[in-house]
Amino acid sequence: MKHKSKTLAYLGPEGTHSEQACIVYDSSANRTPFPSIKNAVNAIVTGEAEECMAPIENSLAGSVNETLDLLIFQKDIKIKYEIIIPINHYLITKTQVALNTIKHIYSHPQAIAQCKTYISQNLPDAKIMASMSTAAAVKQMLSSSKNEGAAIGTKRSATLNNAVTIGENIQDNKSNSTRFVILSKEDHQLTGDDKTSICFELKTDRPGILYESLGELASRSINLTKIESRPTGESLGRYMFLIDLIGHRDEAKVKTAINVLKQSSSMFKLFGSYPRFKMNEGQR
Amino acid sequence: MKHKSKTLAYLGPEGTHSEQACIVYDSSANRTPFPSIKNAVNAIVTGEAEECMAPIENSLAGSVNETLDLLIFQKDIKIKYEIIIPINHYLITKTQVALNTIKHIYSHPQAIAQCKTYISQNLPDAKIMASMSTAAAVKQMLSSSKNEGAAIGTKRSATLNNAVTIGENIQDNKSNSTRFVILSKEDHQLTGDDKTSICFELKTDRPGILYESLGELASRSINLTKIESRPTGESLGRYMFLIDLIGHRDEAKVKTAINVLKQSSSMFKLFGSYPRFKMNEGQR
Repeated sequence: MKHKSKTLAYLGPEGTHSEQACIVYDSSANRTPFPSIKNAVNAIVTGEAEECMAPIENSLAGSVNETLDLLIFQKDIKIKYEIIIPINHYLITKTQVALNTIKHIYSHPQAIAQCKTYISQNLPDAKIMASMSTAAAVKQMLSSSKNEGAAIGTKRSATLNNAVTIGENIQDNKSNSTRFVILSKEDHQLTGDDKTSICFELKTDRPGILYESLGELASRSINLTKIESRPTGESLGRYMFLIDLIGHRDEAKVKTAINVLKQSSSMFKLFGSYPRFKMNEGQR
Repeated sequence: MKHKSKTLAYLGPEGTHSEQACIVYDSSANRTPFPSIKNAVNAIVTGEAEECMAPIENSLAGSVNETLDLLIFQKDIKIKYEIIIPINHYLITKTQVALNTIKHIYSHPQAIAQCKTYISQNLPDAKIMASMSTAAAVKQMLSSSKNEGAAIGTKRSATLNNAVTIGENIQDNKSNSTRFVILSKEDHQLTGDDKTSICFELKTDRPGILYESLGELASRSINLTKIESRPTGESLGRYMFLIDLIGHRDEAKVKTAINVLKQSSSMFKLFGSYPRFKMNEGQR
């Protein structure tokens, strides 16, 4: 399934995990970086890009709310594919140096948090320097006049910047992975092994109403792969529900369940139906 | 409900939203800052502190996974109270200056993200400087030799550092709030208007199993205020469920439902029962 010369928007700069996901998804696509997920998604609306790679869920950090918000509030955006890639953090330096020469560590606070054990064991005295992204961290480290800094980032950002890696997979949890969705104006046609993502806010808040709603899925043997109640943004008291289920919106049982759910909802949005990702399938 | 001279651990430094929550919760407590939520929670285990203030959910950013992980994996920690406080971001400078003199903005990437609209409208040309916390941002801004920087942080961090605020409530979404939990070795006795937080991983993954489990709550008219499926950390395919429900573990119907849920779970943890927070109740 190659999409030749298709423009694929992503959260830049080059060297981010989003760019890595783009390469795994379709290495021949015309990758175009944007300064935010919102800008990248907007490129689909304006026609600047056919597709957009957006992180939606990390196995350690949970949901990526910026992407969920765009799916909820942005019109004309659907999920067309999903892809899961491992997240490995590398310790990146200007040249091959000994760990005990490193006085500063540059990275995004989340990457720093994910590598806490490694840092406390190997670089206990290094000063932490925050950056806006792991890619920016590599540039910050390189721009220092001394060779006493290290950045935490992707292997690709080291390669892109002619830097070296002196530590591999330094994150505390080795099975760190991120699920990305590929967004487009249309979702995917039925393949026979699909998922569907929906979002809804129930009309009433009486005991058991969510249970009854889930019953519309359970009674049709529709399995869920994710359920999340999320504050509506208005306050912490009102919730909307985000559900991923096995099946395609064109399958009769899914279609019926969705229609029943819509009737008990004050807000309902279909994020799209798309092929279920299979690990080790390699490139699409 | 004053807890005089009680030691209350929180994620420091002084001036964070966590400290603000401590003041609202019990202004007479002996507030003790720790460098991480984990360290603050650990102070309860070691006996260094009687209670710990931990952020658990933000209306914009969603769950605070570090706190959830501690509740899941740390023994002898229970939720004793909950408290919800509004999150307001302030633009903080050394002295009263005009917006157009500001060349650098310091803050944590999440605070920067929450103030995107304000920044693009008022400070479009300022350079963003990342920091590890909003409190650290104020110190970074103040340590610059020039008076060309502004930090995004709490009003209290401005006061503590003899800095001034030149912008108030600058976050894009005015109804930004964070729910904190007060952790202790024991949870709270029954008050008659309580919540209970539980976490479990179901033994099997067949269609409808979550539905049946929720049925144990619905059939007893137990209402949910939150449900979240969360990757177990092992991979994105295995999920545990986090549920907040109305009622106390000492109430017969809650007790029975929990016992039934335990039997269908491969892992079950009771985070605790505690009084339901009421807005505008003021200080405890």
